[in-house]
Amino acid sequence: MKKKKVSDSKVVMTEIVLPNDTNTFGNLMGGRLMYWMDIAAALSASRHCNSLVVTASVDNISFLNPVKLGNAVHIEAKVTRAFNTSMEIHMKVWGEDLVQQFKYESNQAYYTFVALDPNGKPMPVPPILPETTEEKELFNTALRRRQLRLILAGKMKIEDAKELKALFNSK
Amino acid sequence: MKKKKVSDSKVVMTEIVLPNDTNTFGNLMGGRLMYWMDIAAALSASRHCNSLVVTASVDNISFLNPVKLGNAVHIEAKVTRAFNTSMEIHMKVWGEDLVQQFKYESNQAYYTFVALDPNGKPMPVPPILPETTEEKELFNTALRRRQLRLILAGKMKIEDAKELKALFNSK
Amino acid sequence: MKKKKVSDSKVVMTEIVLPNDTNTFGNLMGGRLMYWMDIAAALSASRHCNSLVVTASVDNISFLNPVKLGNAVHIEAKVTRAFNTSMEIHMKVWGEDLVQQFKYESNQAYYTFVALDPNGKPMPVPPILPETTEEKELFNTALRRRQLRLILAGKMKIEDAKELKALFNSK
Amino acid sequence: MKKKKVSDSKVVMTEIVLPNDTNTFGNLMGGRLMYWMDIAAALSASRHCNSLVVTASVDNISFLNPVKLGNAVHIEAKVTRAFNTSMEIHMKVWGEDLVQQFKYESNQAYYTFVALDPNGKPMPVPPILPETTEEKELFNTALRRRQLRLILAGKMKIEDAKELKALFNSK
Amino acid sequence: MKKKKVSDSKVVMTEIVLPNDTNTFGNLMGGRLMYWMDIAAALSASRHCNSLVVTASVDNISFLNPVKLGNAVHIEAKVTRAFNTSMEIHMKVWGEDLVQQFKYESNQAYYTFVALDPNGKPMPVPPILPETTEEKELFNTALRRRQLRLILAGKMKIEDAKELKALFNSK
Amino acid sequence: MKKKKVSDSKVVMTEIVLPNDTNTFGNLMGGRLMYWMDIAAALSASRHCNSLVVTASVDNISFLNPVKLGNAVHIEAKVTRAFNTSMEIHMKVWGEDLVQQFKYESNQAYYTFVALDPNGKPMPVPPILPETTEEKELFNTALRRRQLRLILAGKMKIEDAKELKALFNSK
Repeated sequence: MKKKKVSDSKVVMTEIVLPNDTNTFGNLMGGRLMYWMDIAAALSASRHCNSLVVTASVDNISFLNPVKLGNAVHIEAKVTRAFNTSMEIHMKVWGEDLVQQFKYESNQAYYTFVALDPNGKPMPVPPILPETTEEKELFNTALRRRQLRLILAGKMKIEDAKELKALFNSK
Repeated sequence: MKKKKVSDSKVVMTEIVLPNDTNTFGNLMGGRLMYWMDIAAALSASRHCNSLVVTASVDNISFLNPVKLGNAVHIEAKVTRAFNTSMEIHMKVWGEDLVQQFKYESNQAYYTFVALDPNGKPMPVPPILPETTEEKELFNTALRRRQLRLILAGKMKIEDAKELKALFNSK
Repeated sequence: MKKKKVSDSKVVMTEIVLPNDTNTFGNLMGGRLMYWMDIAAALSASRHCNSLVVTASVDNISFLNPVKLGNAVHIEAKVTRAFNTSMEIHMKVWGEDLVQQFKYESNQAYYTFVALDPNGKPMPVPPILPETTEEKELFNTALRRRQLRLILAGKMKIEDAKELKALFNSK
Repeated sequence: MKKKKVSDSKVVMTEIVLPNDTNTFGNLMGGRLMYWMDIAAALSASRHCNSLVVTASVDNISFLNPVKLGNAVHIEAKVTRAFNTSMEIHMKVWGEDLVQQFKYESNQAYYTFVALDPNGKPMPVPPILPETTEEKELFNTALRRRQLRLILAGKMKIEDAKELKALFNSK
Repeated sequence: MKKKKVSDSKVVMTEIVLPNDTNTFGNLMGGRLMYWMDIAAALSASRHCNSLVVTASVDNISFLNPVKLGNAVHIEAKVTRAFNTSMEIHMKVWGEDLVQQFKYESNQAYYTFVALDPNGKPMPVPPILPETTEEKELFNTALRRRQLRLILAGKMKIEDAKELKALFNSK
Repeated sequence: MKKKKVSDSKVVMTEIVLPNDTNTFGNLMGGRLMYWMDIAAALSASRHCNSLVVTASVDNISFLNPVKLGNAVHIEAKVTRAFNTSMEIHMKVWGEDLVQQFKYESNQAYYTFVALDPNGKPMPVPPILPETTEEKELFNTALRRRQLRLILAGKMKIEDAKELKALFNSK
């Protein structure tokens, strides 16, 4: 299969925080944001592999800054690396107060999606071609995140996670 | 007030068509799309004037191609021209079938928003600076559309709509 | 096909403005109202032609008065004129403050719908029979609005829009 | 307080059944209909008493005919009788298949609402003036339904429900 | 068919009251609660009969205490008695203020569901086996409630409602 | 502060999968499930600390089995361990096909919440008292997960994560 560029998979999604999206403090609820991120990531993955996709896993997400009622939320999603039938998607999320002209980081996250054929069976996805420095960095560290993910899901033993183990032992 | 670039007001919104957004044919309902367009346009207007905004009017919208269940909808909104306290927003909407790698135009539209201060009174907005050929064309024809809008809303007499009248009489 | 009365197509829809329907000022968002209007208009069109319908276009809408959180919104929709396979629907929208016993106009609009057979192909609709003075007025001016619509959608040349041209040239 | 006509409290609400409103058989879920009925009844009650209202109780509702996906639902609500600070609302609900030109009864129900002042305290409501035969019948039987309601809520003893007891003993 | 225990049908549903669920006083709207109760009851009924179910009727519901914005709502549903093809479900609803550590009763209700086969025809349901004192009490009084329901729906004559008539005549 | 039992924080939430919650395969979307999990976890955390809470982070989640349209989703949430002002919540999620009487695991996850006072400042939470073997196991491993979380969020250096480092080096 022919390699595809990272930039071809880029999706930008913009939402506005409405009353029902907020908690008692008038800030966007974490769960609502994860719902939007899931849709943005699915669009990005689907664009890369040109097939239907389902969420396989979500990596650790830390919420840095709350997004306020009435502010805009921007989610930028792109594929970092493709494995056999799965893809890792990186997302940057930031809020924007349009009146105060103030943008702030909300969080970053990695979601993994599996490509499925019309019968719901996993199918191969094209490899990715990272071009910029940031894309290459995300491509290289994807292997380590994948090992951590497999260990946490109980699908890999710690001793088999070479890249991850090297990182810990070197410290 | 200092002029601001058209490109600074550009907002791209991406949504996915879910079952509840569709009619009996499995296509995106026109009303749901107008709801999303209103939010995208409000974000663009708000970015230009850095204040709260409300929808003042919506111009004629024609729906060219239906957007299918599961497809992505992209809405690109930007300010074409600023008047005293109002702004005209131009939107391009297209659908995307991610599996078939097929993008298609859905519609185009113009919405007008008024800038409001925290007490809800209209407030002046900065003038716009069109840069590209397309931006200049949209800027120039904005006056004509505004006259048509004011006539249709019963706020201007046909004989006072000079630019619009010239267009009709020249044919 | 036998003519059908305008009154047979009349639909009244009533909604209450809930928190998620409002903007920062606690007023009904324009986009939410357009969504409700689309449903009311579709019901009216469907009643006239007894088939499935899709939104073809929306005419210029001006928002006169904001509708407040907790107020009722009433939308009255009826067919003004039927063309080959399409119908123009006129809507009046007003808000109601039930506690203050106060009703106020919100806006008026024209939506156009196309009748579709079960395969999604346009199908003929019955002609309309206007009875009251208001219905006849709306019927007569429908041709002019249709020409404007077709011009704005790029489907008619200005010089072919006789009724509309006459209106401009007479001023 | 001056009597008000039943007809002044009449509200007609129209909704369309969308995918998310349906059960596995593609029919409107009972719970979604009760939600819409609550809003229609609140509007009718609020119109009668010109104050804020809250749902106090709902009488036995039987669902006669399922309303299908894509059909319209019409809810007609009006006040049958006013007590000190509460009102009984009668609702008729019917479905409409617009393509087949077929209307069918869905259910009937009685909801009771209490009028509240801005501090949330119950406040007196105007008496109702029934005019038609049907309005008078609903007015007369309202007392019996109220007794049944109070017994079922444990707020009245069976031996004190004179009108209701008379009905049972006469059989 | 083999008897099934009441406890096997028990379902506990927990929701949080969000802005769009509330009325002007910031309390949960009655209609929204009835919608959630319908889903909880359907789950309980479906668990008992292992088939699809539809709402047949809802008994008188009194709302005792309003549930506040941000509070939790708990709905406990279980089958009280099975008839030929229908089941009565009893629900207890209470609110919980998590910060003040305060739980309060909201209401109680009885819903009736009919079991349907895949073609939508009513199908027999297993009998229920009440075990605790409360379950036996609810089982015994179910007959009386059923008679009242049938009378109110116009499907039974008062003189045929033996259990119910006995209750009234004894007072 | 007095220790509180794990079992006091237990919350069970049940939802039914409706059409708008599903992807093209008719299965629950990952994002919708994460939204529900966020609400369940917030309720559990709030019950433990009796204050308002916000989502701080979400650990790696793997989706094992898709939950089908019309099936029930059960989410069981409880606090595993309290830190100064934060709590880790463990969730088990399973689907239930009520007709086929079949329950299946969907996923497990850890969310972290911070307790806030009414001004939005973090406030201390009571320590937790694990009682069962499972609760003790979750309590003991919580430290390791917290170190991993802090490393991934860039708030701790790998060499300071003693428990986590020990685990890797021992292999």
